Amino acid sequence: MTLTDWMTNYAARDWQQSSGGTVRYALVGLGWWTTDVALPAIAASEFCETTVLVSSSAEKAGRVAEEHDVDYGITYDEYHEGVAADAYDAVYIATPNAFHLDYAETAAKLGKGVLCEKPMEATVERAEQMVDVCDEADVPLMVAYRMQTDPAVRRARELVEDGFLGDPVQVYGNNSQPLLETIPNHDQWRLDPDLTGYGTSVMDLGIYSINTTRFLLRRDFVTVESRMSSHHEAFDSVPDERSSFLAVLEGDVQMVCTASQRAHADTQLKITGTEGQLELRPAFHGECTLLASKGDVSVELSHESFEAVEEMTEEFDYFADRLLSDVPVYPDGAHGLADMRIVEAIHRAADSESTVTLD
Amino acid sequence: MTLTDWMTNYAARDWQQSSGGTVRYALVGLGWWTTDVALPAIAASEFCETTVLVSSSAEKAGRVAEEHDVDYGITYDEYHEGVAADAYDAVYIATPNAFHLDYAETAAKLGKGVLCEKPMEATVERAEQMVDVCDEADVPLMVAYRMQTDPAVRRARELVEDGFLGDPVQVYGNNSQPLLETIPNHDQWRLDPDLTGYGTSVMDLGIYSINTTRFLLRRDFVTVESRMSSHHEAFDSVPDERSSFLAVLEGDVQMVCTASQRAHADTQLKITGTEGQLELRPAFHGECTLLASKGDVSVELSHESFEAVEEMTEEFDYFADRLLSDVPVYPDGAHGLADMRIVEAIHRAADSESTVTLD
Repeated sequence: MTLTDWMTNYAARDWQQSSGGTVRYALVGLGWWTTDVALPAIAASEFCETTVLVSSSAEKAGRVAEEHDVDYGITYDEYHEGVAADAYDAVYIATPNAFHLDYAETAAKLGKGVLCEKPMEATVERAEQMVDVCDEADVPLMVAYRMQTDPAVRRARELVEDGFLGDPVQVYGNNSQPLLETIPNHDQWRLDPDLTGYGTSVMDLGIYSINTTRFLLRRDFVTVESRMSSHHEAFDSVPDERSSFLAVLEGDVQMVCTASQRAHADTQLKITGTEGQLELRPAFHGECTLLASKGDVSVELSHESFEAVEEMTEEFDYFADRLLSDVPVYPDGAHGLADMRIVEAIHRAADSESTVTLD
Repeated sequence: MTLTDWMTNYAARDWQQSSGGTVRYALVGLGWWTTDVALPAIAASEFCETTVLVSSSAEKAGRVAEEHDVDYGITYDEYHEGVAADAYDAVYIATPNAFHLDYAETAAKLGKGVLCEKPMEATVERAEQMVDVCDEADVPLMVAYRMQTDPAVRRARELVEDGFLGDPVQVYGNNSQPLLETIPNHDQWRLDPDLTGYGTSVMDLGIYSINTTRFLLRRDFVTVESRMSSHHEAFDSVPDERSSFLAVLEGDVQMVCTASQRAHADTQLKITGTEGQLELRPAFHGECTLLASKGDVSVELSHESFEAVEEMTEEFDYFADRLLSDVPVYPDGAHGLADMRIVEAIHRAADSESTVTLD
């Protein structure tokens, strides 16, 4: 393949299996992410339609449904009772972490596919229950790792598979943001251990570096050391306002990673190999740019070079495609569970100030 | 101060104390670094002159002295005997690590100032001896951390002191290079534990991230966890073809750092604070560019913006300035010794797979 070929001929949806059809989604949890990102992403999709909105408040569910021309706006209780169950094929769960399992259980009972936001749940145990529940009901479960359908990430993965890096040597990931500036409420759920789970910076931010690295390198974590601390009073109930870990992945690949919920916003994921380097910067949050370097030569694929493909649209269409074609999803329950175990290990390593080995 | 002021009015040599004079250097060790970098840097300097070259071979010393119009070319033995001692005021030691102490001892005996390449020596114990020997002889000792006289680094330090970062949160450093491509000899001293000391990637590369971070933040290391491994047969005798560490610095600042002697060349040092970010990229090796970011605004100071100030020239002039003005050097023996203890702790942490606390 020539460079010209490579630069001009990208199969935007190399994952696509189905030739048509529509998957009707019920969106569970109507926070800003659902209304401002998920709803427009589905509206722009090829295989998806939003038919049901689920919220704690009947008023809010009804109002948002009307605003977005969605057929049903129902409450969580109504959802659990099976109201409007014939109107959707799959659910998208975007509630606080500790509620994911409850909504997945109901979806499984109703025979609906489950697309669940990451991290899967508040704890490993509850994530395991989610996998079991979906397995027993034989409904597809996908964890919403939207980086995996980001075209820049998929191109990076192509390059890894093609041997671009030589042997991967070291990985660096960072995901930091000023959470209290974005969401000034000090009592938000991401800072409440009953709702978020183990903590906040690893669960909410570090997981991007973890999962994208696993996806790119197809290597799992072997050991982890970690440090975390909280400083601002809003973070009194969680251990990891800031967190850093050092992991060894299969094949002796070393990974260092930082995450912070109270820092200058910055995202970077960099994989250095014996023969080249692949870097995503910005790395996450919908504006991924890929820099591929070898010797003194670098190629940059900016987000714009992919005609602004919206990664959430890609994600919803990917899951719909899997349901329509009956092909297994890649980031399934077992895949998401591995991340939950890594997150838990990172917290345990910080608590114990010692190495934790992943089984 | 306005941005205009800041961008246009940089005091290039804010460290300068002396108003004139010349320090005559003997350069000990005639590897490519000395001939290709140190000699031209001194030739371009304001306060320095090379008057003596010292090598293992009389033929080489004489030949290189003649080529560069240097008064004396002498052997190591002659140097130890005090030959041409009246012709120089200070020595620059650029031999393999394990020989630094011997040359420093002779310089101290002869009452000469010592500018010693980093890392100071092969082991903490020998570095301690160097400090003692120079103290007892009352000769100035400086460790050659040329990053500390790089204008981009000094501007970054100004910004840190000015509160640009808010509270520093996390630091990332990387320094990787394909050593066997640059120097194809598999038996080179950097891979020989008798000459390099504890290892190769931390001693030779990681030390840039360590020392520059200490210089920028004025914070010392508290704990360190580390991983290292060797893979290529040329690295059979050293433990750290690749190395990574996770450190906690004073004030709970977390630092992650990678270094590799067999990887794509890349240098980056990034300090993320609660309110801003300072990044050097390229970070080391004479082409330092500073990126200062706050919110959505970034200012880039490229190496070119400093009129290509040669950091080695700055370093030689800095030490000469200290000798001429009798003002203490900042990166003195105690400062370099702290790095040696950190490097040793990183190796011990990797060996023991446990946390090492710096005293």
